[in-house]
Amino acid sequence: MQRNRFLSDILSTLFDRSSNLPKTQDARDIYALCRALLSEEGEVSGQKLAATVLARYRGLSDAHKLAFFQFLNDELDIDAAALAPLTTEYAAKPSVAGFKRLSHAAEPKRQELLRRLNQPVGATEELVSMRVDLLELVRDNPELARTDLDFVHLLRSWFNRGFLVLKQINWDTPARLLDKIVAYEAVHEIDDWDDLRRRLYPPDRRCFAFFHPAMPDEPLIFVEVALTEAIASSVDDLLSDAREPLTAQQAKTAVFYSISNCQRGLKGISFGNLLIKQVVAELSLEYPNLTHFVTLSPIPGLNKWLATQTNDEAIGPAAQTMLEGTATAEQTRAMAARYLITAKRPDGKPVDPVARFHLGNGAEVHAVHANADSSPNGRAQSGGAMVNYLYDLSKTEHHHENFALRSVVAASRSTLALSTAPFTTKSKEMTP
Amino acid sequence: MQRNRFLSDILSTLFDRSSNLPKTQDARDIYALCRALLSEEGEVSGQKLAATVLARYRGLSDAHKLAFFQFLNDELDIDAAALAPLTTEYAAKPSVAGFKRLSHAAEPKRQELLRRLNQPVGATEELVSMRVDLLELVRDNPELARTDLDFVHLLRSWFNRGFLVLKQINWDTPARLLDKIVAYEAVHEIDDWDDLRRRLYPPDRRCFAFFHPAMPDEPLIFVEVALTEAIASSVDDLLSDAREPLTAQQAKTAVFYSISNCQRGLKGISFGNLLIKQVVAELSLEYPNLTHFVTLSPIPGLNKWLATQTNDEAIGPAAQTMLEGTATAEQTRAMAARYLITAKRPDGKPVDPVARFHLGNGAEVHAVHANADSSPNGRAQSGGAMVNYLYDLSKTEHHHENFALRSVVAASRSTLALSTAPFTTKSKEMTP
Amino acid sequence: MQRNRFLSDILSTLFDRSSNLPKTQDARDIYALCRALLSEEGEVSGQKLAATVLARYRGLSDAHKLAFFQFLNDELDIDAAALAPLTTEYAAKPSVAGFKRLSHAAEPKRQELLRRLNQPVGATEELVSMRVDLLELVRDNPELARTDLDFVHLLRSWFNRGFLVLKQINWDTPARLLDKIVAYEAVHEIDDWDDLRRRLYPPDRRCFAFFHPAMPDEPLIFVEVALTEAIASSVDDLLSDAREPLTAQQAKTAVFYSISNCQRGLKGISFGNLLIKQVVAELSLEYPNLTHFVTLSPIPGLNKWLATQTNDEAIGPAAQTMLEGTATAEQTRAMAARYLITAKRPDGKPVDPVARFHLGNGAEVHAVHANADSSPNGRAQSGGAMVNYLYDLSKTEHHHENFALRSVVAASRSTLALSTAPFTTKSKEMTP
Amino acid sequence: MQRNRFLSDILSTLFDRSSNLPKTQDARDIYALCRALLSEEGEVSGQKLAATVLARYRGLSDAHKLAFFQFLNDELDIDAAALAPLTTEYAAKPSVAGFKRLSHAAEPKRQELLRRLNQPVGATEELVSMRVDLLELVRDNPELARTDLDFVHLLRSWFNRGFLVLKQINWDTPARLLDKIVAYEAVHEIDDWDDLRRRLYPPDRRCFAFFHPAMPDEPLIFVEVALTEAIASSVDDLLSDAREPLTAQQAKTAVFYSISNCQRGLKGISFGNLLIKQVVAELSLEYPNLTHFVTLSPIPGLNKWLATQTNDEAIGPAAQTMLEGTATAEQTRAMAARYLITAKRPDGKPVDPVARFHLGNGAEVHAVHANADSSPNGRAQSGGAMVNYLYDLSKTEHHHENFALRSVVAASRSTLALSTAPFTTKSKEMTP
Repeated sequence: MQRNRFLSDILSTLFDRSSNLPKTQDARDIYALCRALLSEEGEVSGQKLAATVLARYRGLSDAHKLAFFQFLNDELDIDAAALAPLTTEYAAKPSVAGFKRLSHAAEPKRQELLRRLNQPVGATEELVSMRVDLLELVRDNPELARTDLDFVHLLRSWFNRGFLVLKQINWDTPARLLDKIVAYEAVHEIDDWDDLRRRLYPPDRRCFAFFHPAMPDEPLIFVEVALTEAIASSVDDLLSDAREPLTAQQAKTAVFYSISNCQRGLKGISFGNLLIKQVVAELSLEYPNLTHFVTLSPIPGLNKWLATQTNDEAIGPAAQTMLEGTATAEQTRAMAARYLITAKRPDGKPVDPVARFHLGNGAEVHAVHANADSSPNGRAQSGGAMVNYLYDLSKTEHHHENFALRSVVAASRSTLALSTAPFTTKSKEMTP
Repeated sequence: MQRNRFLSDILSTLFDRSSNLPKTQDARDIYALCRALLSEEGEVSGQKLAATVLARYRGLSDAHKLAFFQFLNDELDIDAAALAPLTTEYAAKPSVAGFKRLSHAAEPKRQELLRRLNQPVGATEELVSMRVDLLELVRDNPELARTDLDFVHLLRSWFNRGFLVLKQINWDTPARLLDKIVAYEAVHEIDDWDDLRRRLYPPDRRCFAFFHPAMPDEPLIFVEVALTEAIASSVDDLLSDAREPLTAQQAKTAVFYSISNCQRGLKGISFGNLLIKQVVAELSLEYPNLTHFVTLSPIPGLNKWLATQTNDEAIGPAAQTMLEGTATAEQTRAMAARYLITAKRPDGKPVDPVARFHLGNGAEVHAVHANADSSPNGRAQSGGAMVNYLYDLSKTEHHHENFALRSVVAASRSTLALSTAPFTTKSKEMTP
Repeated sequence: MQRNRFLSDILSTLFDRSSNLPKTQDARDIYALCRALLSEEGEVSGQKLAATVLARYRGLSDAHKLAFFQFLNDELDIDAAALAPLTTEYAAKPSVAGFKRLSHAAEPKRQELLRRLNQPVGATEELVSMRVDLLELVRDNPELARTDLDFVHLLRSWFNRGFLVLKQINWDTPARLLDKIVAYEAVHEIDDWDDLRRRLYPPDRRCFAFFHPAMPDEPLIFVEVALTEAIASSVDDLLSDAREPLTAQQAKTAVFYSISNCQRGLKGISFGNLLIKQVVAELSLEYPNLTHFVTLSPIPGLNKWLATQTNDEAIGPAAQTMLEGTATAEQTRAMAARYLITAKRPDGKPVDPVARFHLGNGAEVHAVHANADSSPNGRAQSGGAMVNYLYDLSKTEHHHENFALRSVVAASRSTLALSTAPFTTKSKEMTP
Repeated sequence: MQRNRFLSDILSTLFDRSSNLPKTQDARDIYALCRALLSEEGEVSGQKLAATVLARYRGLSDAHKLAFFQFLNDELDIDAAALAPLTTEYAAKPSVAGFKRLSHAAEPKRQELLRRLNQPVGATEELVSMRVDLLELVRDNPELARTDLDFVHLLRSWFNRGFLVLKQINWDTPARLLDKIVAYEAVHEIDDWDDLRRRLYPPDRRCFAFFHPAMPDEPLIFVEVALTEAIASSVDDLLSDAREPLTAQQAKTAVFYSISNCQRGLKGISFGNLLIKQVVAELSLEYPNLTHFVTLSPIPGLNKWLATQTNDEAIGPAAQTMLEGTATAEQTRAMAARYLITAKRPDGKPVDPVARFHLGNGAEVHAVHANADSSPNGRAQSGGAMVNYLYDLSKTEHHHENFALRSVVAASRSTLALSTAPFTTKSKEMTP
């Protein structure tokens, strides 16, 4: 343990001294500074130049930021004309020297710029923020997507799993970080401090987050977990403040009921699959009595889809009932199952984005529940229905491959049956 | 400070659990595993696959390692034939889609393989070791240098300054790490524990190292510093066990008397310039009374060069005297100055590698000393002569540029004068 | 710093393993166990016996707790009859052997019992809780005060300043501890998380607490500090959520606006004086620009005292006005000053308990303010008046001695003047 | 764990700021300062006064130290004359007020002085050093033993088990502390760094120490443990550098082969029994496969005792053989067993001090070994014989009580048999 303590010293040093480099006034504009950073000057004074560029960037107006990204996009692009002959040459003879020239020419100069910008302490976080700006600008300036591809390429390399750190968030976590958990929670909003305490303090609750050593104050993604006896069928019950907590030893099931990405600037760099599997591994190790790892997930696209099915012969009336909020629990479950398992996009993958995420990770649709989320949002998107995706690590590879290559949706027998059952549309009204 | 403590928790978590992933027996060979890692399967189970590949690699014989690198070199190379048309297309029309295709094709597949291998905890260190093997093999298989270029490309990105952590090594450092300092010291060998204590314990001694968060037990480079009153002219004096230590407050000068790179697998990724400047910044902040930052450096190429000068009219006799070990201090200093300032390679840069390093960092030749290193190695390489390079942070940029672009060697007026003074070759013998 | 890191390891070890002692069922009752603990058996198995006694105590009913304390009070009292001859003997001849016998006999056996009970990890906290029970019982069983004197004697020795640890509480503090700060705040109640953030997060707010290593989760006492430009005259302003924070560098004054003791079981063991002076020392060191250290304190006894003065010729009418809530600011200040400086107990010390505390520490009455605390409690106890006590470390010794030995109340010239000024009782009503 | 991290912050704070109290020049001599510390002045400025007294003490000559302790011994003694009537009074009527007066009078004033001296950071360590001086002076000034009794009384209370911290010492321990382990090792000297590494680094070696939070840099006592398969019979084997280490999982036995007290100033405050039992508990928890916990102990008094037995009819010749170094292994073992089990002091306890310690802790004599310690010291004191004491926590209480109250020496059947076997004195010579 002490071994890591040593590392912690290392890191305190790093963050205590964040600004001990000499500050100078450099009269050059941001373009000249970037060119200098890429030149000989950048070789020896790169850290200082990079800090100056980043400070200069922070002060830019929106219009100047656009201009800056256009500069990256055009002036620091691949020089394809220069690259072409090197390609031909290397195809003919794969020499080391040829490879070196080719490699160099094949990479847009902005990649090297971004790497050199990443030298000062704190720079990684600034580059992530810079990408938030870029994503904003790409909307109206789609050609900037080229530059964004390079951002993604580098960030993916820097936020490689091998560099991420899993950390438990609990009631011993500093308030500063808990404030961020509250702010970043994206699935089931955290009302106040008492609500947060209900999710972190009881012995049957867990929360885990990934961090990157270069951004120690910023969670990248976190998941909230409830340890339960049975597989949970309602988030209302999970978040209730009246319940009696279990000890961790009594629990049989770990329910992942909320996963939130925290960094818009890391969009497209996926941590969810890794986080879930790492947490499953951690919990398995710590509580060998846990037998099931499931999510309790929203079905965000259900009602939207139902609205497109109201003229369908088979399920139109049931869909209508559901949209009117008068469907029975049984109807709701049947419709949710049908939607999750049969509603597909043109590419064959499910319409539902949350389903795509978990099925893509190799999970399977385990069970659907009515009256599981009574929040306004839950009612509006899925009539209160929710779904458990089951993570069985011995099957995730198989499921993933079936899903990725053949679009097969893995599901429990009962949910499959439910998804194809004929509808007893009138059941609720008919009940005498 | 507590903020960083939180990070330290993060990191303890990381390293305490290094092996909590399910272990399976995978029957495939390393090539099939690498292909799987690059395929769909690698998307979802990359961490486990990568761990398996790395374990498999560790077990390979030397011959199989060569075959493995040849596989990387050839099968996972750039497909230049496929790249060529994409280049032309993009040159004609720089579309986003075209850029995406081009970028993807322009990168050797082995780069993506290496990134995916870097997912398990501890993988970075294993990839660095893998490169040690590769460098060995490149000697007899020069075509593997192509693969090595990709290693360098990725390692340079991952060991970016922004991710490095500066750490003081002192008498509160764990023994485990001190063992490594002893092992890695490359300039002035550390004899035993008492010698190490002399370099770390006294109040006027400092040692700093760079670490990477993914390799917390392994220093990347370290520098040993003596705080002194005057600019030190002899490493014998610095390392003497009879001296009386100063308080840090009494010191006027920081003498960098030993810099050692620790990781052969990071060859070509330069940390020395960054380390020296960061340590200068740290020490300046902590001890505002420090006025000079100098090295006390060996002159490894002096005698070798002198051996080529014995027929030179001007300095031949003096060179001879020196090689015979009978030169006076005055002669020795003059020859050392002349060598450092005037002996050049065809490209105009100094013959001496240590000189090239410090001058390339923007330092200047400050003073040369005779009888400064009486160790057998010191005698053999430079007749006991050593040199101070001066780091004046207000001038390093200027010096660096002059040196890099125009091969100008910055030197103090007195050393310059010494380097051009006519030799009084017989002085020693003549002294009555 | 690493040196302390090592200690932290030490301590983690301590608290991670809190319950690794073999648990056995011991059939003896708590009295037999206590006797065993004091006997030969306690010499070698004291830690286990003590844990058993403490566990047994926790399970006692109130009636049995009383019986237990009566056992301590009577059976484990000083044996004065046995002591008397030893006293005489030692008075005649102060031999070492005689001293040993005398010392042993002069200490009530319950002290040794308490020391032996303090062996298991966590025992100190349990003994502090035990004293909470005891204090409760002393009310109706005043003879138990003898046992309480021994508790105080030992706790004072164990909670010696040399063992206390000063710690800053801020927004990096774990939530678990912040919950306790909220619970223990005794002067200005903390409404909710936002109120807490206002007191801990801004750059011009500080909070410090004393801890004891054997009770690391429990603050003993804490003080809340506001850094301000001028000496604060209203806690309403200090706690307002609309104010603009200063940087710590802009501040000239540190205002101690709330001090709360946390442990009822440590009643009579005073930490306040030590805490204030240590915090003054810390802040002086960190912010050399701070020139004044003052409290902004309640005047809890003002209105109660005024109610006894309504028939007084000089101030009766003014007191009446004040109690009716119609006094002017000027009147309020005059009355507060008069109360603080002139209202004395029979022993010559001030009637006001807060005044006694700060004056006893060597502070002086610096200024009084009207409309400074508009909370219901503030209105009720002092008509909203508050007072600054000034801590000038160069004078505290002198003031303390004057106060302790001669009951002199140190006060600023202006407050002294105010305290003796004749009253313009009608001023408010007279204002046309 | 983070909970303890918080405490570590607490403690870093403590030790980083060790000298932030205002320093003043106080003209009074050490006696006047002590009196002031005990007076009203000490109530409010005790920490500063105490620091001044301690600084003054450090500067005293040996003669002045003696005078200082005589001052403590006489002027700050119990006033027995004043105490006598209070005793009588309390014997007559045990009132609270009477108890308070009695308690106060019954304690030597030097105890309160020592408590007040213990207020500055670092004071505890200084008081421990002060006692080293005192113990030195007691030799020639036996009356000072009275003062020493008060030192012991307070130190025993402050170094109560509940305040001690168990810490593993290993290869991740800072060099600064390892230097102390080398210095304090009292049983089997540590030759050099390699010897230390052999004791701390291998996976089958452990070392544990007790620390006190107020002296974090100073171990109080430490024990070195070897994990082995069989019960070790030779320390030569244990410390050999040629052996192949076990994994901790392979081990069946924990051998405590060296226990060293570190603080002369804590003489008479026993930590050994507590340390051994805590380490047994820790190791049992971590390695459930461990079945035996034994020492491998020296027999320091064997040869000395044999020298007194040369005229004894039964064992005289054998004793002679042994002292001449020509005894067989069998003879050596028999004599060692007889010595340990039968050689008694007038009070009935064993002559051997190490035996008294372990038997007093409730261990039993398990086995004796010849040729177990070939060091010069081992040869000289016991002809190379050593002994295993066995700690079976289920029996230690029983053994302890039998030993303490009835002087029964617990021993294994085989050792008992050996201790009473008739001697075959000539066996070695007779072997043809």
